[in-house]
Amino acid sequence: MGKKKNILIIGGGACGPKTAARARRLDPDAQITMIQDELFISYAACGLPYYISGAVAARNALLVRDALAFKKISNVDVLVKTRVDGIDRAAHRINVTDLSDKRQYTLDYDKLVIATGANPVVPPIKGINLQGIHVLKSVPDADEIITLISESVTKKAVIVGAGLIGMEMAEALTARGLAVTMVEALERVLPAVLDAEIADLLANHMKNKGVTLKLGQKIVAFEGEDGKVRRAITDKESIEGDVVIFAIGVRPDSKLAEDTGLDIGPQGDILVNEYLQTSDPDIYAGGDCVANVNLITGHRVFVPMGSTANKHGHVIAANITGGKEKFPGIVVTACVKVFDFNTGRVGLGEKQAKDAGYEVVTGMIPGPDKPGYYPGSREIILKLIVEVKTRRILGGQGTGPGDVIKRIDVLAAGITMGMTVDTLCDLDLAYAPPYNSALDVLHHLANLVRNKLEGRTTGIKPAEVKEKLDKKEDFVLLDVRSRPEWESTRIEAPQTLLLPQPKLSEDMNRLPHKEIVVMCRRGGRAYQAACTLKSAGFQDVKFMEGSLTCWCDEVCGKPIL
Amino acid sequence: MGKKKNILIIGGGACGPKTAARARRLDPDAQITMIQDELFISYAACGLPYYISGAVAARNALLVRDALAFKKISNVDVLVKTRVDGIDRAAHRINVTDLSDKRQYTLDYDKLVIATGANPVVPPIKGINLQGIHVLKSVPDADEIITLISESVTKKAVIVGAGLIGMEMAEALTARGLAVTMVEALERVLPAVLDAEIADLLANHMKNKGVTLKLGQKIVAFEGEDGKVRRAITDKESIEGDVVIFAIGVRPDSKLAEDTGLDIGPQGDILVNEYLQTSDPDIYAGGDCVANVNLITGHRVFVPMGSTANKHGHVIAANITGGKEKFPGIVVTACVKVFDFNTGRVGLGEKQAKDAGYEVVTGMIPGPDKPGYYPGSREIILKLIVEVKTRRILGGQGTGPGDVIKRIDVLAAGITMGMTVDTLCDLDLAYAPPYNSALDVLHHLANLVRNKLEGRTTGIKPAEVKEKLDKKEDFVLLDVRSRPEWESTRIEAPQTLLLPQPKLSEDMNRLPHKEIVVMCRRGGRAYQAACTLKSAGFQDVKFMEGSLTCWCDEVCGKPIL
Repeated sequence: MGKKKNILIIGGGACGPKTAARARRLDPDAQITMIQDELFISYAACGLPYYISGAVAARNALLVRDALAFKKISNVDVLVKTRVDGIDRAAHRINVTDLSDKRQYTLDYDKLVIATGANPVVPPIKGINLQGIHVLKSVPDADEIITLISESVTKKAVIVGAGLIGMEMAEALTARGLAVTMVEALERVLPAVLDAEIADLLANHMKNKGVTLKLGQKIVAFEGEDGKVRRAITDKESIEGDVVIFAIGVRPDSKLAEDTGLDIGPQGDILVNEYLQTSDPDIYAGGDCVANVNLITGHRVFVPMGSTANKHGHVIAANITGGKEKFPGIVVTACVKVFDFNTGRVGLGEKQAKDAGYEVVTGMIPGPDKPGYYPGSREIILKLIVEVKTRRILGGQGTGPGDVIKRIDVLAAGITMGMTVDTLCDLDLAYAPPYNSALDVLHHLANLVRNKLEGRTTGIKPAEVKEKLDKKEDFVLLDVRSRPEWESTRIEAPQTLLLPQPKLSEDMNRLPHKEIVVMCRRGGRAYQAACTLKSAGFQDVKFMEGSLTCWCDEVCGKPIL
Repeated sequence: MGKKKNILIIGGGACGPKTAARARRLDPDAQITMIQDELFISYAACGLPYYISGAVAARNALLVRDALAFKKISNVDVLVKTRVDGIDRAAHRINVTDLSDKRQYTLDYDKLVIATGANPVVPPIKGINLQGIHVLKSVPDADEIITLISESVTKKAVIVGAGLIGMEMAEALTARGLAVTMVEALERVLPAVLDAEIADLLANHMKNKGVTLKLGQKIVAFEGEDGKVRRAITDKESIEGDVVIFAIGVRPDSKLAEDTGLDIGPQGDILVNEYLQTSDPDIYAGGDCVANVNLITGHRVFVPMGSTANKHGHVIAANITGGKEKFPGIVVTACVKVFDFNTGRVGLGEKQAKDAGYEVVTGMIPGPDKPGYYPGSREIILKLIVEVKTRRILGGQGTGPGDVIKRIDVLAAGITMGMTVDTLCDLDLAYAPPYNSALDVLHHLANLVRNKLEGRTTGIKPAEVKEKLDKKEDFVLLDVRSRPEWESTRIEAPQTLLLPQPKLSEDMNRLPHKEIVVMCRRGGRAYQAACTLKSAGFQDVKFMEGSLTCWCDEVCGKPIL
């Protein structure tokens, strides 16, 4: 037997500890050392917003395992508060500094794992260093933000960036009693995650919960007093606040790798092959510092996610202990809870799909997440993106107070396996009233997309209808709901006409022979009515997908969901 | 154009109305008539237990659409309280009787759809006709059961059959204040649905909720007074009760089809091809009166389910209006809520898989359905069945207070698409603390099964350990939990030894070199410890899968879950 294998792991977040623990199980003899620049290792970083909000009461609950436990249970040496200064690839050695006493020394390796994660992007905006402006990455960040909140004078917070962390922080700060204004440079919330239809529904919900959204605005400066931030200045206005969360995105922490000459990808990611091996065969990298193959397009995408980091660790552990496992890639699944709405996405968005060259057909449907008669039934709104040529599902997303995430996970499994919309129509999902309707919203959605693919029906998005109304186009917006529904909430426009569905057949002679857009509450009756009208000879009939439930304009006066 | 197509649909449950409504959308001109022997059509039959329990307050909530609405909205003629007496295939004509006035007449068809559903099996047991013994199929059944409950003198109920309906009724009758005894001829609850490990965990929960289970007992008679049932007599004992629910299973209602000479399958099902067409090309059948292809084995199985019936209706509607759609089959997904446990299954059970000729490896794992630190995290226990040769997932099942059903639905999608255990290991499921841990229990489960496939670890089921203890075998049952855990609950046996995991490495020299079964609370530490022991040279080491969490014996004294 040769000498014991020397494994060094840089980074103690998610991928690092996972690698270390499994490497120990696979190789009982190896010398395994994990190096972390801060005090904490292996903590639930994704739980920090819930610690800040108060939903998770004790910070300790987020600390999975400390250095001592790691040594006892997995026989892994953990060097905390230790910085890696450089990698000498030729000598198979790294230079480190003990941050407690500034002592410098070297460590040798046979296999090196870089799991340095990602860092929040913080551009050199004027005033960015004022006290009260904070990113959220680590446990100390969270502690400092909690202090900031408690010391806030104005009780007003500004969140810069409507990405996943920004959205979670909007809920957390609101829960802490702050008035939150969110600034996002792009025109919708979660712009990298959601299509506009879904994002706008979520944005409506946030407004209902008291969050002020400033979309399409860029931060240009921060202003303060006595070194403390007092307001954020955008290209359009000035926004008061003495707590500022800066969350415009993260970038792979690939400096060490770059400095030692490893190949770096176009997104600043450490380039790895399917074994998560870098351009140096003795160095592996995983977690938020690498990109992943998008299993749909085959392109490499930078989508940092704690779940992926854990899977990376699992694979790397095998490969540095003599195994050969692959990490195939991701389908870009993401989810986020924002107040009472559950939101998720998987695969490609509609625009992403089109940009990638796919001809697509989409559908959007609201529906209850279990039968309406069963207690606790709640609404969900789902969108599906399907390739016309292959009928393959390319993506799906949804939002609403109901169980959106189950459907996203089902689609994640389906998309990973190349499922077509036809298979989704007949998919044998679990059915019992406490869990689901006999047909899931996914089934109705798949049927809708299939009907569109077959040319059986023509849909139109609520936002497109809005545009037609704004342009004062000449068409009929035919509402087929009941009169009481109409009297409670309706779209006020000269084009609107009420003709309740049960009397549609007898009354349709009142309709002019021009473009007709049929609407109801959720789209179901509108779909049915559109079929009836088409059969009766009306040529230009569309139904408004999602109808009033997906109508994001303020004309409704009150929230539908 | 020819004359209008004449479509007759026999049955107004789930498949019938679905067929009628979609056929109307696809063919605006057809004459569509639906015939139902009772008053109600298109009601949520699966919701009846929840109406009985009181969870669904208003019966009307279960009535989806009545005959009048069906006429107005879909222009379908509905003949309620009308019995079909026979089918004259040569004449394309059926004979019916109006049950209100006994008037007999005929109806012609071009296409006939048989959606007659299934009937509860009621064998001619002595005393079966006593008042107080009831099946649950229809709305009037539910009303009569509610009356029975209110008139119950003993407040004791007997449920015969621990299938899906029996289980739902156990909860419903308990909720109504009755003391419930459940009698099942086979040795476990949900014998057709669950493997023993999962079924026994669910049975434990039912016992904790006050249900008395009489498994492995056959009903031989009922006895009563004044024509009213007072007790059920099994082959082993006499059980008091004046409310008896008889739910031992259902059989396809294929009498009409059989009488007219259509091909009937071995399970009494109306034989249909993939277009749901019977042996007569102008007659289709769907819903609970037909069997379905099991997509894993290719065999036809009789698994009546409201969800499948709706999908059948969708397909039949296309095929009777000139289209050509297929219904490929099912993966035998099922779920049921029983008190606080959510239970589901999909694919093949372990024994079913072995009986079908597959060599399988299985795994079982408990875990929280979202991170333990997040409020509302609850335990789930999942089992996976994988084919050794192809590594394909054949089945999965689970139970527990947490969100089991999401995982079942993910597996349903995966199994339908032929997913392997390796793909499940890396499946990109949605991750955020309110919804899931970074690695889902499904990931841990897939990793476990893969490790077993690769020979990296050896598992043993709790029931097998119990058997070894009962046989007084010579081995070590090594508990690696902490001393406080041990003192709170432990398996009392001379073979048991406590050696907490953090001190395992230093203390393992105390262990004898014989067969060692390692256990902890959920199996995670035991797995880790088993790796450590194997590495240290112990030859015969197994870890107990699911450990104490999946231990169904009473030795624990109190429920773990």
